[in-house]
This record gives sequence, structure tokens and C-alpha cells, in this order.
Amino acid sequence: MKVAIMGYGTIGSGVAKVLDVNRDVIADHLGDTLDLKYILDLRDFPDDPHKDLFVKDYMDIVNDSEVQIVVETMGGVNPAYEFVKAMLLAGKSVTTSNKALVADKGVELTKIAAEHNCNFVFEAAVGGGIPIIRTINACLTADIIEEVSAICNGTTNYMLTKMEKNGSDYADVLKEAQDLGYAEKDPTADVEGFDSCRKIAILTSLITGHQVKFEKIPTQGISKISAVDFKYAKAMNRSIKLLARAVKTGDTYTCRVAPFMLPEDHTLFHVSGVMNAVYIRGNMLGDSMYYGAGAGSLPTASAVAADMVFLARNTNRVVPVKWDEQELAIGDNMAETYRFFVRTGASQSEIEEVFGNVEYANLDLDDETGFVTEMISESSFEQLSKSLGEIKSYIRLA
Amino acid sequence: MKVAIMGYGTIGSGVAKVLDVNRDVIADHLGDTLDLKYILDLRDFPDDPHKDLFVKDYMDIVNDSEVQIVVETMGGVNPAYEFVKAMLLAGKSVTTSNKALVADKGVELTKIAAEHNCNFVFEAAVGGGIPIIRTINACLTADIIEEVSAICNGTTNYMLTKMEKNGSDYADVLKEAQDLGYAEKDPTADVEGFDSCRKIAILTSLITGHQVKFEKIPTQGISKISAVDFKYAKAMNRSIKLLARAVKTGDTYTCRVAPFMLPEDHTLFHVSGVMNAVYIRGNMLGDSMYYGAGAGSLPTASAVAADMVFLARNTNRVVPVKWDEQELAIGDNMAETYRFFVRTGASQSEIEEVFGNVEYANLDLDDETGFVTEMISESSFEQLSKSLGEIKSYIRLA
Repeated sequence: MKVAIMGYGTIGSGVAKVLDVNRDVIADHLGDTLDLKYILDLRDFPDDPHKDLFVKDYMDIVNDSEVQIVVETMGGVNPAYEFVKAMLLAGKSVTTSNKALVADKGVELTKIAAEHNCNFVFEAAVGGGIPIIRTINACLTADIIEEVSAICNGTTNYMLTKMEKNGSDYADVLKEAQDLGYAEKDPTADVEGFDSCRKIAILTSLITGHQVKFEKIPTQGISKISAVDFKYAKAMNRSIKLLARAVKTGDTYTCRVAPFMLPEDHTLFHVSGVMNAVYIRGNMLGDSMYYGAGAGSLPTASAVAADMVFLARNTNRVVPVKWDEQELAIGDNMAETYRFFVRTGASQSEIEEVFGNVEYANLDLDDETGFVTEMISESSFEQLSKSLGEIKSYIRLA
Repeated sequence: MKVAIMGYGTIGSGVAKVLDVNRDVIADHLGDTLDLKYILDLRDFPDDPHKDLFVKDYMDIVNDSEVQIVVETMGGVNPAYEFVKAMLLAGKSVTTSNKALVADKGVELTKIAAEHNCNFVFEAAVGGGIPIIRTINACLTADIIEEVSAICNGTTNYMLTKMEKNGSDYADVLKEAQDLGYAEKDPTADVEGFDSCRKIAILTSLITGHQVKFEKIPTQGISKISAVDFKYAKAMNRSIKLLARAVKTGDTYTCRVAPFMLPEDHTLFHVSGVMNAVYIRGNMLGDSMYYGAGAGSLPTASAVAADMVFLARNTNRVVPVKWDEQELAIGDNMAETYRFFVRTGASQSEIEEVFGNVEYANLDLDDETGFVTEMISESSFEQLSKSLGEIKSYIRLA
């Protein structure tokens, strides 16, 4: 079976490597080989072992009826959207690792695929090598999903782990992550939580079957987390992780991306470094967790290649995906309830006057007090914070 | 779509409950409902809400052409084998939670299903609610699996966790587990590792595509683990877990079930209580782990019901499973290499004379010394142990 790769960067070149190195095991699963026929990239790779396969015009792939499966690993919404759409319209199945594309255009591309007797899949778009998409679509199909909490960004988890272990501050850790290639030169998408936000939007879409607009999910990153926050966390036997969450609330889900303080017995407490994990609670299944490398060339490419096996197994058959264009009315974020960890310059009597019964996490700092509220709603917290004034920072407890 | 359940025990009644409680979400995934038409059980359940569905003769189900999907939750090889075979011969798809049946007859039943245009699946037979079978069959299809290490028996993991936390001895914890219903009156299958052995045989069969005979897997349980062993483990910052492992060795896999001492950074270190987890390392994917409730009525029933959704989605279509009757020549267990933790009455000079460079884990006990060998083969360890004599116990390090 002939296949093509669009975008020969970190992940695309990884896919080519997986197809080479694991050619036999793939053929064994499939009863057929996956033969790479084209690589689309505007750059030249004169020393690459696949140098004869490069093309610069995506129409070369569209027009070759021999190609049945196309990989999109270009990243970004445009021109990936245009290229992928053209492939699907030509009846070629597509797998992508591109969360921006899937969050923005996934429902439309899924529909186009079904209309043209092919499939659009995206296992690698969330959680890298972790098979979380297929787990939701094909495994947890008899449960009402009550909660998804994901550590789904390796860059930020690496940074938070370093801050925790070394007591370092945010800026130093960011520089180190950039030097090591774990963070991009412009790290905004990772550190401000936008990447995690797209991923939880995709997962929530698949769970509900409706379109979740990532723009509507309150998203807070880790750029305001400091070494002092970690000192407080340590004093409370907690860890700070950037979670992307969807929690069942009545008939819908409430979504949020934010740093959370996790207790030691939380399933995600020990997920450290660049590793990712997705916690899912079902009403029958109870707790479950899926852990693995959330980024990196080969782990992500492994998921893309597994998608290719899936597509090859399902040629000329549309595998139904529960995802329609109706927008999900996501739950009221102001009604979410949490215990909040708060750092303030206010006095203990002022704190208690406003927040009532609190738990102190005192580090004996001169100019501030740390405390944890009782379980209160976001809207209460907003009001009470204004009453107290002087709030330096706060982190929700999970 | 009409379905039937054979065996109305813990899991079978759980399946009926999942079909009731989650009727809507299942219908939503499927575009059809799963309607329970028969329950096969020799016992009477006069007060059960499904009391009108009970039959005592499995032929009532075989002969009803309306029934397309049958659940087998009777346990044991016979008569489950006869009943399941009859269902498949009649073209009805079957899902089972019965690891004894799958380990013994799975390859034959898979073949019969394919010959009769239906499917035989068994997600709940390994890891309870954890979707590990479908992950191997449908997700990790582009990787060479290098290692599977599973904590796949909730009873023993519960017991080991209790021993670790409370410093209790084996006999006391067993009694407590029996009182709580976590261990059976005759706990042999769990505590001697036979249950874990069948499960790793099934997983290794699916990974290799060949039949792995569970009888050939060296299997050691936890009944010889003592409170003192846990004291040593604690002194070494390790935990003791019963692992079922398959490790790629050349062209085949070496399998073993035994207690292992895990370091704190091992992916399975924090898996405690009745929870199960399966660690899988792929040559491209790297580390991954799948965690959840390995037993219990509803989590296991959730996996059975998800299998029913899978079967309903694939009526009149055989989903290929890589599993043939050719027996896998499993790797040479005597060539496995480990570091061994050893307790002995011998003196330090005797220990060093035989084992050379060792690491002591001294608890200052009067009558024994604990030490860890360098990495050596099973056969070397066997020989050297005989030379030393006086070995009280040993545990492999992971």
C-alpha cells in the first residue's frame, strides 16, 4: 500500500523512520507493507536516504491514485487544512499529529472523510504516543465519562518538574528547556496553556460527540508559577501540575486549563519530566490512567504509524466517529468549586474575616501568608478575593 | 440488538447493570440499543429485576437467531468452552472475561469465530477495566514491543501493599483480604501467581501472534514474601510487586511471573492496593503504562460492555486477530539476567567469596545478612546459590 508524508520535520521524519525500522512488524499486523512513495516538503534534503521521494507540490500526491494513505505532520492550520482537505476529497485517508488543525477543523475534516469513503484520524494529536484517542473512541464506549484530567504538554511538565526538584525559578527553567530543545524560542503556546487547551477541546469533543470551541475554555499557563509556590506545595505534600480538565456537570462538561496543586495520592502526582498522562474516570470503570511520551519524534511517529495501520485495515470502509458540528454549550466555569491556595500580604485576621475557616500553609515569610480556602465556587472566590485585596497569587487544589 | 449473558455472578450481574444504567451512552455510541434477552444461570434469582430473562439451557440462546452477541462470565474452562463454542458455531459473537478460557482455548475460539463470520473478544480477561487487549491489537501496531510488565492481579497487589504499609506478615494480610472478599477462600490461583501467569500468556500470544502455553512460564507467587523482606525493600527504597513479564529476547519473548523489587522511579512503583497496571515499552514508543481497576464487578463489566459495543459495530465482519495455533518457543529462562536480592545466614566473607562484588542491605539482624548481587544470569545464580548454601530467600530486582 502506497503512502505519503506531508511535512518532513521532527515528526514527519520520525514517521519515515518508523516505517523503515518497523517495516516487518507493521507488515505482520497488516498482511501488507506500507510503502512510502512521496514526501512533501518545500525544503531540500539532498543527503536524506529518502531523497528521491521528495515533491514540492501537494497536487502530485492528490493526483496519484495509487496513494491511499497520507500523513500530515506540517503543523499549523494553514496550509495543512487545504492540503488535508484535498487528500480527503480525493478519497485518500489521512492521519495527522496536528492538534491545531484538529481542534479547529477536525469535525469538518471528519465529515468530509465520511462523505468520500475514507477516514480522518489523529491519534498523535493528543498525548503523543499515548493511544488516548482510540481508547476514548473504541474502548471506553460503555461508560459515562465523569472526568478527564490530562497532563498533555511535555514542555510545561518538564519545566514544573525541574522547578520542583531544583527549587529553580520559572525564567531559569525556561531558558534551560529552550537550550535543551524542550521549549521553543517563542514558548507561548506551551507555557500559556494554549496547546493543552486545544487538546482538552479535542478530547471533550470526542467524549460528547459535539464541537467544543477551544476559545471558550478558560486557560491559564505556568508563567506565573514561582519557586515560592513550590515551597508552599512541598510544605503541603503537594505537587503543581498543569492540568487540562473536562468534568461532567449536569448534561455537559466544564473545561479548564490551569496549574493545580495535586495531593500525593493523586493518580497524576508522579507523572514527571516530559512524560504525559491522561486520567479518566468512568461511572462504571472508575479510575483509569494512560501514560507515555507526550512528544518527541519517535513516540509521536509511533502513534502516527499505528494510525496508518488502522487506516490500511479500514480502506473503503468509513469507521464512524461521534463528532458533529453542533457546538457544545460547555458548563458554567464560575460555578466550578475548588479549594484555592492563596498567597496574600493580608493579616490572618483579615484573611479569616473574609474567607472564614482556612488552613494555613505557613512558610514564615515576612511579607506574606499562604492559606487554603474551604471548597468554594469560582464566583465566590472572585468576590472574596476582591474583598481581601492584596492577593499575590492563587492555585486551585485538585 | 439482542444480547445474552451466560453466568450471573459478580461480573455477569455487573454487565446487566452497565447495560441498564448506561443504556443511553451505549446507544449513543452505537446508534442502536443493546437489549438483554436472556441470562443463563442454573441458580434462581426470584427477586432480580431481570428475573423474567433467566434460562437454564444454553441451547435456548443458541437456537434464538435474534441474539447476536453473547457474554460469557461463568469462569473456568468447562462448561464455558462448550457453551462459547456453540454460540460461535451459530454465528453469534462472544465476549468473555474468563482468562482461564482464553489462555487455554482462546486461539481455537478465535479461529472458530472467524470461520463463522463472527468475533471472539476478551478485553476483560486481562487487567479488568483497563483496555489493554485493544491497545495491543489496535493501537501499538507500529512498534516492536520490547517489554510487557504487568501488575495484573488485584488480590496480591492489595496484599503486598498492606504488608508494605503496615509491616504485617503474609498470613495476617491474607486473612484480612479473605474477610474483605478481596481474596478467595482457596487463594491459590491468586497468591501463587497462576492467575497472573495466564494473563501474561494471553498478552504474549497477542504480541507474537502465536500460542504461548501458560504451563511453560516459570511462576512464583507471593506466599513466601515476609514482613522482613519488606524491611529490606524499604531500606533500599524499593517496593515488592508481583510482576508478570514478557521481555523480547532475540526473535522470541522470555516470560516469568515472580515478585520483583522495584526502584522508586519504576513506572509501576506507585501502583498500589487492588489497582492493576500494565507497563509496555515499544522500540519507537518508549515507555507507556495503562492503569485501572483490575477486578471488581463494575470496572470489569465496563470492559465487557465495551466489547459488546465493539462486537455490535462489527456484526457480519470478522475483525482480524493475529493469533495462530503454532506454539511460541519462549526464550530460555535460565539465560535471563537480573540483580538478585538474597537473604542468607552465611558470613560476609563467604558471600563475597561466592558472589564477588555485592551490595549489602543490612538490617543488623542477628542471624542473617541481606545483599544484592551484580547482574548475573539465572543459571549462574542457581549455581552460586548452591555454593553458598544457607539461602533463606531471594527476590529479583527490576
